[in-house]
Amino acid sequence: MLELEQKVGNYMYIGLDLGGTNMTAAVIDDQFNIISRATKSTLAKRPHDLIIKDMYDVTCEAATKAGRNIESFETWGIGMPSYVNQETKKVVHANNFGWINFPIFDYLEKYTKMPIIIENDANCAALGETIAGAGKAYHNTIMITIGTGLGGGIVIEDLIYSGADGMGAELGHTKLVYDGTRCSCGQKGCVESYCSATALIRQMQEALAYDKDSIVWDWCEGDLVKIDGRMIFDAANEKDYVATKVVNQFCDYLSGALSTYITIFRPEAIIIGGGVANAGDILFDRLREKTIINTFAASEIGIPQILPAKLGNDAGIIGAALLKKFR
Amino acid sequence: MLELEQKVGNYMYIGLDLGGTNMTAAVIDDQFNIISRATKSTLAKRPHDLIIKDMYDVTCEAATKAGRNIESFETWGIGMPSYVNQETKKVVHANNFGWINFPIFDYLEKYTKMPIIIENDANCAALGETIAGAGKAYHNTIMITIGTGLGGGIVIEDLIYSGADGMGAELGHTKLVYDGTRCSCGQKGCVESYCSATALIRQMQEALAYDKDSIVWDWCEGDLVKIDGRMIFDAANEKDYVATKVVNQFCDYLSGALSTYITIFRPEAIIIGGGVANAGDILFDRLREKTIINTFAASEIGIPQILPAKLGNDAGIIGAALLKKFR
Repeated sequence: MLELEQKVGNYMYIGLDLGGTNMTAAVIDDQFNIISRATKSTLAKRPHDLIIKDMYDVTCEAATKAGRNIESFETWGIGMPSYVNQETKKVVHANNFGWINFPIFDYLEKYTKMPIIIENDANCAALGETIAGAGKAYHNTIMITIGTGLGGGIVIEDLIYSGADGMGAELGHTKLVYDGTRCSCGQKGCVESYCSATALIRQMQEALAYDKDSIVWDWCEGDLVKIDGRMIFDAANEKDYVATKVVNQFCDYLSGALSTYITIFRPEAIIIGGGVANAGDILFDRLREKTIINTFAASEIGIPQILPAKLGNDAGIIGAALLKKFR
Repeated sequence: MLELEQKVGNYMYIGLDLGGTNMTAAVIDDQFNIISRATKSTLAKRPHDLIIKDMYDVTCEAATKAGRNIESFETWGIGMPSYVNQETKKVVHANNFGWINFPIFDYLEKYTKMPIIIENDANCAALGETIAGAGKAYHNTIMITIGTGLGGGIVIEDLIYSGADGMGAELGHTKLVYDGTRCSCGQKGCVESYCSATALIRQMQEALAYDKDSIVWDWCEGDLVKIDGRMIFDAANEKDYVATKVVNQFCDYLSGALSTYITIFRPEAIIIGGGVANAGDILFDRLREKTIINTFAASEIGIPQILPAKLGNDAGIIGAALLKKFR
């Protein structure tokens, strides 16, 4: 009887993470475990109606695998790499897809009349990690995802905060160095241009030009293009002088970015995701130490926890599915 | 009869702005007009019980002038230059007063049992300007007060946002230049160390060292210590070359700071207060122009209004009085 009640009470959520390469749908239970999932290639340059159809189909597939019909869920949550203007209900600019002011809701409505919520994928990841991952013990968090670029998400009292018009929280494009290094966005001195994996690799390549003794010269077989983030952290763990210097400088820059977010939001925790977050102590020890040093009033009022993300790529799907409940 | 109803319906608020030099209490009506006020010198270094007594007395005086008793108001709102930890109910650090972790509510309770709300004064000013001043048409604003330092306040949906623990929104101490100019807070590269009136004067003094032709050398009678912000803007309005260069650079720095706040919050308006805001077009024209240039995605999604504050010193008192209704 208890078992039955638990099953009946087992509220479920469905979400879709629409990426530039793959789209993944999942059903999650009320303990935030993924109980089914389905994936398709996005093939983002196809005509949009084919992509929209696959978005629906792959989500139906995840529902079916969980023994449910998509229409039996209260809401369909979708994360994707774009702003969504919540007033006009349009995807403002999805670079990978070539969608500009794209009325995605109109197209999705051809398949289902169920309520649909669409959010930026970095925001979904922040929500997922906060509700179900590294930030589970907290309600006010900031998540930084460090990859090719640097994405950010802000969670206030378990709700995504993305600015008054839903197009903010672009933490990677806040300024770290006024008039500094050119960013991929065209601006200068953005956090992304100092603290992304791309920036780390560039910083290492620049440092190697002045130092031929680094172990990384061997590892990359003399071809600097082969250097990736892991190689740099591995070399630093081997106490390679150049790699250590570069990793330390990278942590210092990142601490500067975190100091701004802390000074504004005073979150309970900052969660670091993306490949770089796997670097472990060599990143986090220095980052914590320097964030204390570089943050206003930290000696009086402390700084938040700085934690590695836990859910990996699933954070975005879980966050998308939870858009209903927590937004 | 209509007149009577209006009078009966005329809800009133009472607030106190506790500054380092003066404390001013005021009663405001439901149209946000100040209908009575009273002021005393703060004499901030006195024993705290004398200051607390004056806070109560001056507020009673404002109430009496409005024909009311302080206890007849629903709430007493107080703005002061400190964080207030809303959980421990303590003033964390009021520099001017030498109050550290000071249990101000306990002392105030000796005089009245009415509900008291205490907020940082920069946050009160932001609320006042948003509800009753330059931001009246908006609900999501950021206010920057440029004076000796640089204070900030964030209003989200007509509510003060001051971070998860109430100790955030310290916009003057976000980073503008990582590892840059030393700030009065001890950190390096804070917005305040580039964009305060103090910073503007320092920038002018530095520029004058390289250029003896400026009209400002005459105006300050060769004594650089006599330079103030107004002198610099006046000289720029006279097309003085050095002053123009310094004002332009100041606007450029400030645009960099605003770009960070816009990229995070996407407010409807940014309100600039403090003495510098009186500079008029020579400040605001350049500031708007450069903020468009320096802000992520501004060419696609625009930037908010950038407006001078309207209420002057009254913003803080009005905001304090309104803490009840809008917080």
